[in-house]
Amino acid sequence: MGAVRDVCVIGLGLIGGSVLRAAAAAGRTVWGATESTVDAEAAAAEGYAATTDLAAALRRAADADALVVLAVPLPAVEGVLRAVGEHAPRCLLTDVTSVKGPVLDVVRRCAPDTRFAGGHPMAGTARSGWTAGTATLFTGAAWVVCLEEDTDLDAWREVAVLALDGGAHVVPLAARAHDEVVARISHLPHLLAAVLASVGAYGGPLAAALAAGSFADGTRVAGTRPELVRAMTEGNRTALLPVLDEALGKLGAARGSLASTGGLAATIEAGNNGSRALAGHKAAVRAGVRLDLGAPDARDGLLALGERGGRITSLDGDLLTGEVA
Amino acid sequence: MGAVRDVCVIGLGLIGGSVLRAAAAAGRTVWGATESTVDAEAAAAEGYAATTDLAAALRRAADADALVVLAVPLPAVEGVLRAVGEHAPRCLLTDVTSVKGPVLDVVRRCAPDTRFAGGHPMAGTARSGWTAGTATLFTGAAWVVCLEEDTDLDAWREVAVLALDGGAHVVPLAARAHDEVVARISHLPHLLAAVLASVGAYGGPLAAALAAGSFADGTRVAGTRPELVRAMTEGNRTALLPVLDEALGKLGAARGSLASTGGLAATIEAGNNGSRALAGHKAAVRAGVRLDLGAPDARDGLLALGERGGRITSLDGDLLTGEVA
Repeated sequence: MGAVRDVCVIGLGLIGGSVLRAAAAAGRTVWGATESTVDAEAAAAEGYAATTDLAAALRRAADADALVVLAVPLPAVEGVLRAVGEHAPRCLLTDVTSVKGPVLDVVRRCAPDTRFAGGHPMAGTARSGWTAGTATLFTGAAWVVCLEEDTDLDAWREVAVLALDGGAHVVPLAARAHDEVVARISHLPHLLAAVLASVGAYGGPLAAALAAGSFADGTRVAGTRPELVRAMTEGNRTALLPVLDEALGKLGAARGSLASTGGLAATIEAGNNGSRALAGHKAAVRAGVRLDLGAPDARDGLLALGERGGRITSLDGDLLTGEVA
Repeated sequence: MGAVRDVCVIGLGLIGGSVLRAAAAAGRTVWGATESTVDAEAAAAEGYAATTDLAAALRRAADADALVVLAVPLPAVEGVLRAVGEHAPRCLLTDVTSVKGPVLDVVRRCAPDTRFAGGHPMAGTARSGWTAGTATLFTGAAWVVCLEEDTDLDAWREVAVLALDGGAHVVPLAARAHDEVVARISHLPHLLAAVLASVGAYGGPLAAALAAGSFADGTRVAGTRPELVRAMTEGNRTALLPVLDEALGKLGAARGSLASTGGLAATIEAGNNGSRALAGHKAAVRAGVRLDLGAPDARDGLLALGERGGRITSLDGDLLTGEVA
C-alpha cells in the first residue's frame, strides 16, 4: 500500500468534513479549506487544520504530494479546479460529487495534469455543514471510485484506500455507468417524489388526513432541500433525460391502457417483477473475488466487477479482495 | 344510539374477518358467510358463526334487521348484491371496498331498496385471509362512511357506529370525493412505485447494489400483491385517469424543462412546497366540532367536515362529536 498519504480536503460540509475526520481517524495528516468561515472555525475548534485560504491549502498539498479531495457542490467545482490547476497542477485528485461525467469533463479542461480518479461516497443525512459530519459516515456505505480508459491506476488505488479507510466498500465504475445508474436509482426517485407530492397537495387537508403508507413512502424524499436535489438532477442531465423518458413511456402506457381497455396488469406486474428481481440481486449469495492491480487486464476486471454489482472490500499492495454475486 | 344492531359480514378475509371480530368484541351478535371454506372453517374454529351458505346468512340478516357488511373483492360485489336483492332486499347495508362510486352504482342497480351507506376502512396489512385479521385492525384508522344526496341518515349513523365501535374515526365523504382523493394518495403512488421499480430493474445487479433510501422508499409498495393493486386501481378508473394525467403533465413538464433549459427548479420546488403543505395540514391544531344529525343541514355539515380533513370521533344519539383544523 506504500506510505500513508496526506489528505487535503476542499469543502468542509457534511461529506468533506466527514472525509477529513475519517482520514484523520485512519492516522493520516489532514488539512482542509472552505469558503465558509463558519465551517472553518467549527473544524478548527475541534483541532483540525482548517482555513479559508484555498491557495495555501493547495500549495501545501503540492509540496506534500497529498491526495486532494474536492468536496464542494457541483456548481463550485470549476472554480476550485482552476485553483488546483494553478497551485497543485500535478496533484493526486479525487472528488465526492454526486455526478461523475460532468466533473471528469471539467477536470480534463481545467486541471488536465492532475492524477485524477473521481469518487462518490453514497452516504448522507438530511443535515448539512461541518457539524453534521462524522468520522463514521461512510461505514458500510458504497463508495464509487471511477475508472476510465486513461485513469492512472495508482491514483485509483489511492482513492480506493481513502474509501476503505473510511469503512466504505469500493465500487469501480466508469463515470458514464455511474451517472446512468444513479439517474435510475436516485435522481428519478427524487423527481417522482416531487411529482407525487405536488399531485397529492392538490387534495388539500383531506388528502393529508387520509394519506398513509404508500403516499408517505412515495413522497419521503420530496422533503429534501431543493438546492441539493437540483444540484444532483440538473448536474446529471445527460444521463437523466433517457431515464426520465423511460419513466414517461411506462406511465404513458399505463394511462393509455387504463383509458382504453381499463387494464393495468402490464404496469403493475412489471413493477412487481422488477421489485422482486432487485430484491433477488440484493439477497444473492456473494462469492469472494481477488484481483491483481498489476495485471494487464486489471482495468477490465475492475469494471466488470462493478458493473455486475460487485465491490472491493480490502486492498493490500496490488492485491484487491472483493465479492460479487 | 338505539339498540345495538346485529351484524352480518359477507366475505371473511382480512377486512371482513376483522369487522366480524371487532363487532363481536363490541358486544354485538355477529355471523358471516364466505365462499372460502378455508376462511369459514377457520372462523368457525374460533367460535364464530360462519358459513359458506350466503343465502342463509342473508335471510337471517333480513329476519333480524341486521346490518349487512359486504367485504368481498370488487369483482365479486355484483354477484353478492344480487343475492342481497333476493334474500334481504330492504336490509341496512354497507361495504368495505376501496372504491366507492362503482359500488354505489351496482347497489342502485342490483339492490335499490336496501338502506345503503358505503364505507372504506383505511387499514390493512400485507397479509390476507381470515387468519390475518384482528379485532383491533381499525384502531386509530380513518373509516370513510359515504354520504350522498339520497343516503338515509339512519343508515349512515348505523355504519358510523360500526366504525367507531371498531376504534376507527369516521370521515364523511361523497363517493366521488372519496374516489378522487384515494386516486391521489393511494392509487397514483402504487402506479409510480411500479414504474420506478421497472425502470430500476433495468439497472440490474448494479442498481440493486447502489439503491438506497430514495429508491427503497419509492418502490416499497411495488411489492404489494398485483391482484390487490389491480383491483383498486382498475376499479377506480374514472377518478384515476385525470390524476394520472396530472402526474404525466408534471413529469412531462420536468422532462421538457430539463431538455431545454436544463432546469428542474419548478418541479422540485413544487414538490417540496407540496410536501410541506401536506405536513402542515397534518400538524395543524384541531378544534372540536359538534354536529346534530337531526338538524336540517346535517348532511351539508358532515360533508363540509370531511372535505376539510375533519373526522367524527364519537356519536351519542343524534349528537356527533369530532374535530377539524
